[in-house]
Amino acid sequence: MDPTINVSGVSQLFQLLRDGVPRTRAELAKSTGLARSTIAARVDELMRLGLITPIAETVSTGGRPPSQFALNPSARLVLAADLGASHATLAVTDLAGSVIAEHSEPLDISLGPVPVLTWLLEHAAELLERLGRPASDLAAIGMGIPGPVEHSTGQPVNPPIMPGWDRFDVPGWVRQHLDVPVLVDNDVNIMALGERAVAWPGVEHLMFVKVATGIGAGVISGGSLQRGAQGIAGDIGHVQVARGAGVPCHCGNKGCLEALASGPAIARALRAQGVPAESGNDVVDLVKRGNIDAIQAVRQAGRDIGEVLTTCVSLVNPSVIAIGGSMARVGEHLIAGVREVVYTRSIPLATEHLAIVQSAAAQNAAVLGASMLAIEHALSPETLTALVSA
Amino acid sequence: MDPTINVSGVSQLFQLLRDGVPRTRAELAKSTGLARSTIAARVDELMRLGLITPIAETVSTGGRPPSQFALNPSARLVLAADLGASHATLAVTDLAGSVIAEHSEPLDISLGPVPVLTWLLEHAAELLERLGRPASDLAAIGMGIPGPVEHSTGQPVNPPIMPGWDRFDVPGWVRQHLDVPVLVDNDVNIMALGERAVAWPGVEHLMFVKVATGIGAGVISGGSLQRGAQGIAGDIGHVQVARGAGVPCHCGNKGCLEALASGPAIARALRAQGVPAESGNDVVDLVKRGNIDAIQAVRQAGRDIGEVLTTCVSLVNPSVIAIGGSMARVGEHLIAGVREVVYTRSIPLATEHLAIVQSAAAQNAAVLGASMLAIEHALSPETLTALVSA
Repeated sequence: MDPTINVSGVSQLFQLLRDGVPRTRAELAKSTGLARSTIAARVDELMRLGLITPIAETVSTGGRPPSQFALNPSARLVLAADLGASHATLAVTDLAGSVIAEHSEPLDISLGPVPVLTWLLEHAAELLERLGRPASDLAAIGMGIPGPVEHSTGQPVNPPIMPGWDRFDVPGWVRQHLDVPVLVDNDVNIMALGERAVAWPGVEHLMFVKVATGIGAGVISGGSLQRGAQGIAGDIGHVQVARGAGVPCHCGNKGCLEALASGPAIARALRAQGVPAESGNDVVDLVKRGNIDAIQAVRQAGRDIGEVLTTCVSLVNPSVIAIGGSMARVGEHLIAGVREVVYTRSIPLATEHLAIVQSAAAQNAAVLGASMLAIEHALSPETLTALVSA
Repeated sequence: MDPTINVSGVSQLFQLLRDGVPRTRAELAKSTGLARSTIAARVDELMRLGLITPIAETVSTGGRPPSQFALNPSARLVLAADLGASHATLAVTDLAGSVIAEHSEPLDISLGPVPVLTWLLEHAAELLERLGRPASDLAAIGMGIPGPVEHSTGQPVNPPIMPGWDRFDVPGWVRQHLDVPVLVDNDVNIMALGERAVAWPGVEHLMFVKVATGIGAGVISGGSLQRGAQGIAGDIGHVQVARGAGVPCHCGNKGCLEALASGPAIARALRAQGVPAESGNDVVDLVKRGNIDAIQAVRQAGRDIGEVLTTCVSLVNPSVIAIGGSMARVGEHLIAGVREVVYTRSIPLATEHLAIVQSAAAQNAAVLGASMLAIEHALSPETLTALVSA
């Protein structure tokens, strides 16, 4: 039997076992259509790699070999990084996405790629040391950055707030110091992955909308993250909204959603009304203290966002829109504005089964999504094929 | 060797040969990693099924077996149907999507499913008879209809202009009379597939916008047609546009794109100016005769469409927007309006490599797309596996 076919049997088996549900050899044979003798050989191979583990049964089998198997989530680790504009979070997770060590601190992305990635490598080494695990246990690194990324190369492309990062070979640089696969994506894209993993497993059409200093969306359609031709799919912050006429945006255009409904934009509008608010955080505090002007401003921002999302609902027909980012901490006031407009303006069929909800993953969405990105790569049929053939 | 693995080798080989490029056994072994002996057996199997054919070389090989193989496009046929609101086109194509027989005539979709599908079966039989091919040569039927379709079942869902079709089991009914797989999709979705096949092979992010009695879009993202949670992704005709305030739409809402920029809407606007235009076709004729009012009205409709497409460009980041449907026959005037707004309002990175063009497939887009839908199914690994195992 030739080796390629051999490997493909292994992968088929493993993709089945990834859900963590223990199965017997007989169940595996039935689900895959592979012969019993083939199953036995493949199970041994996956055990040898440490990727699956025997599960003890409640009733003793009297010394016979253990008969159920499942994914061994602690076989390997992944490193997940959420690099924000001014803050970075690093986590080590197992192959099921559970965080087992974490570090977070203020870090300015505009320091440039070498200082930021050096920080990442140093703290990754610290986390592994704390866990007593060698670097060779790392199966992949997943990373989110606040700018557009060319998916095939992992290179930032024209990121507006990341000086020095344009076309920097992030995976190449990291791999000179730590030789594992490096997956880089836009922060909002990985938030969408994290949100789905936490709250909507199996949902195939989901939009994650981040409302913070900027506004952007991560779009999962047909089960997959959609990145678009230039890697900027979901970049809805610079769509013009009706109320925006004449309001200048930092992008150079006028009337953009971000110039009206982002945290700084809401704060600016409140200051113009004589309400002291310097930042999005101040707005959140005001809303939490029940300030009526702040509540109304946030509700209006929700309506502006809803105006843009109405078109998105028609175009991609999601079943879930999750609103996250720092401004989502104001709670229902923002979501209420979004719902008001989306439900008024959309065709009934598009909203009949549409949930518009606050992010459940909240501030963990990004780091969990980065972990998902890394795990998806580490457990893919291609990676497994390479492992078995090696 | 167990049969499942055997079949997966066949499929791997065939997916490679589908592009029509002739390959030798040695080339196939190199590309697939399968052993030479395996390749020989699989090639024989695919030849037996008639799916691949030996290609004669220019230099005689002196009686040895032919050494190059490629897809045999005439091995099987597919039936492609474009069922419009008031017109139907039926085509028989080969497995490369070339039309080999066609029939077209006025047919009212509102007659209901049984009369329309009976018409389809009768004319399919006629076309096959004309070609001298038995019904058993049909590998699949692809069908486009003017309404939302639940992709998994092929059932129309709340189609507004198709009385009697709601939740009708189209594949089930057809298969009672002609036992082949039946794939049903929305007309604009299959137009997107047809447009890509004709003009943009390999393009992964494409939007096809149909401008006719209604306005809708078919969205290809990440290489796949995106249908959304309810099968209505791309239904952009009822997004509200700035100029639309107060204009009533047949959907019950106000200010929808379709109420301003569809063929009937442009004709109505012209009549209000005293220009005699009863329909979209009249508008096209006026523009072709150089009527300035009609040209201006079409240009403005293009701007309205562009307003909605600007958000679409930000959300899905396509590399191609193809404008088709009966109103696209006015040529550059409509496209110019679309470009004017999209290029003014979008962020530069989103439009740097974006082509906004007239549909190249034009009125053939739907029937070609229906053929693609059927071929994709007929040549899929799953179908092939079933064939070989049978």
